[in-house]
Amino acid sequence: MLEETIAAIRPADARALADARAHQDRLTKPPGALGALEEVAVRLAGAAGTSPPPMPAPAALAIFAADHGVHAQGVSPWPQEVTQQMVANFLAGGAVANAFAAQAGASVTVVDVGVAADLAPAPRLMIRKVGYGTADLSQGPAMTRAQAVQALEAGIAVARALIADGARCLITGDMGIANTTASAALVAAFTGADAAEVTGRGTGVDDDTHALKISVVRRALEVNSALLDTPLSTLAALGGFEHAAIAGFVLGGAAARVPVILDGVIAGAAALAAHAMSPAAVDHCVAGHRSAEPGHASALTHLGLRPLVDLELRLGEGTGGLLAHPLVCAAVRVMHEVATFDAAGVTEKPQ
Amino acid sequence: MLEETIAAIRPADARALADARAHQDRLTKPPGALGALEEVAVRLAGAAGTSPPPMPAPAALAIFAADHGVHAQGVSPWPQEVTQQMVANFLAGGAVANAFAAQAGASVTVVDVGVAADLAPAPRLMIRKVGYGTADLSQGPAMTRAQAVQALEAGIAVARALIADGARCLITGDMGIANTTASAALVAAFTGADAAEVTGRGTGVDDDTHALKISVVRRALEVNSALLDTPLSTLAALGGFEHAAIAGFVLGGAAARVPVILDGVIAGAAALAAHAMSPAAVDHCVAGHRSAEPGHASALTHLGLRPLVDLELRLGEGTGGLLAHPLVCAAVRVMHEVATFDAAGVTEKPQ
Repeated sequence: MLEETIAAIRPADARALADARAHQDRLTKPPGALGALEEVAVRLAGAAGTSPPPMPAPAALAIFAADHGVHAQGVSPWPQEVTQQMVANFLAGGAVANAFAAQAGASVTVVDVGVAADLAPAPRLMIRKVGYGTADLSQGPAMTRAQAVQALEAGIAVARALIADGARCLITGDMGIANTTASAALVAAFTGADAAEVTGRGTGVDDDTHALKISVVRRALEVNSALLDTPLSTLAALGGFEHAAIAGFVLGGAAARVPVILDGVIAGAAALAAHAMSPAAVDHCVAGHRSAEPGHASALTHLGLRPLVDLELRLGEGTGGLLAHPLVCAAVRVMHEVATFDAAGVTEKPQ
Repeated sequence: MLEETIAAIRPADARALADARAHQDRLTKPPGALGALEEVAVRLAGAAGTSPPPMPAPAALAIFAADHGVHAQGVSPWPQEVTQQMVANFLAGGAVANAFAAQAGASVTVVDVGVAADLAPAPRLMIRKVGYGTADLSQGPAMTRAQAVQALEAGIAVARALIADGARCLITGDMGIANTTASAALVAAFTGADAAEVTGRGTGVDDDTHALKISVVRRALEVNSALLDTPLSTLAALGGFEHAAIAGFVLGGAAARVPVILDGVIAGAAALAAHAMSPAAVDHCVAGHRSAEPGHASALTHLGLRPLVDLELRLGEGTGGLLAHPLVCAAVRVMHEVATFDAAGVTEKPQ
């Protein structure tokens, strides 16, 4: 399933890109006046292979939840149980992601790819558990390669299911106490940045814990150094189950030419893995927001993506991606609904 | 009507602000994890005088259209007729503002406060014409004080009418070829900044026109220097009819405790005038976006506002304010719908 998905991914269509750019310049606005949103519309045309691109709605948020062996190193002030408690909160509709999804008209699906507890079945919960949390990446590989493939394919399957259900835009979400540590390790490995540059304070750690977190990321890169030779084994060595699943979700969306809005640093780290496996997958992605985590900026630079929302969010769950969704829709809507200079009888050429 | 409106404006309610901050910290998210959106929700609670504040929906966009005598100085490459052509485009539903309003679920009302032509009546057009364009601000005052009051009261009346019609959020919009020149003059006068710092390239001017524009703004400040002694006479000397009307729209929203999302530099310049007349009016405003115009940053700094969207838009029409509306709604929705740590059974205290 992974190979078949990667084989199906096409890069941005050059003709659709050119058509979209030309159309933008005929619309009743000064050229370039919509700034970054013009590029979003052009990007989605290239991804879809047609201009104007289809409206990216309705959207579906998938929150991939998993636990992390590295939590034992004390990299987060939050107890591991918060992962499953927040899953319950998502399923009850009480989290920020639920409120933002309601605002965006997006569905919310929670996917257990590796929570360290058995979860009771629930209507919006998909159980695709690969393990009860990863192994501790600072002691050796977090996952086996087989586990990484299983998690990747879980993500692909979720993308396919949501698209079959009518989704025309996928939004990545994540929940996993300690997952910014694994994200930092992935970003360092895929971009070559130093651990200290890409390791942040997550949902809030003090100076001592931050220093510890950097040393843990550094140790993870050292202890796994022999395994960082291919995208898959790098992902397996340093990632969380949710990172692998989100990478698969991105690949699955790209293969179906359905755009994927990336949330924050966890999605950015996962997208680096997807990009390493299939560079063209990124042509189907939009960066929803810029997280307060420093590794996120490194990831976005590496991927050539510009974030749409920049409001110092540091929550995860897909919240930044959900906030970006109406902006992406607005950008595409312009291509469908705005009159051209000719049609509207508006003077086009400056005097 | 102007005096009565100013007298009705109340500053942010201290108790509602404190309640909203305390509520934010009980919600199932790390404290501060929603970044700037937490401050938006708190701000709207203070403005409404109650926490949580009412949902700021539905929204109503008012596009105030007018022409400018200073156009004769060659400060814009666009012919003046584009103002009325774009009014027709708004009324036909073909402009970017219409597409963004559809995305936000906002109504669109166009207000002729000073277009240099007689416009045919239309369902979503309010005719409140103060004149056929202002006088040239580089030769003397753009408006008389009586005209400025008339335009201010037109804006107040529009705010009242839209609120009576069910709007729970007002969004400022503008259309007027050459109105970034008047905006720069207003920003310079109200903030004390130099003309060169606050005069930008509008919807697109070359280096020569930009230099001319700066010299025109400088001349406007000199020739009107004796008139810049009160907020009203400063607005009359340097503003456009749409600036005065937007200032009134802001005052009208604030008096009714209905939040106003400011669009770009035209709204920023108008809000400076409203602020000078009633500092508390700004407590009821949210800055929708950061325009590419340099004067906008000066205006926002003076007003103490942080823009939500920062995507290099330079179109006006209310487009930046419309894009911000779902972000403002998301911020407020969190206050209504997100569970507290206690209620959700999520561990609150870090280990």
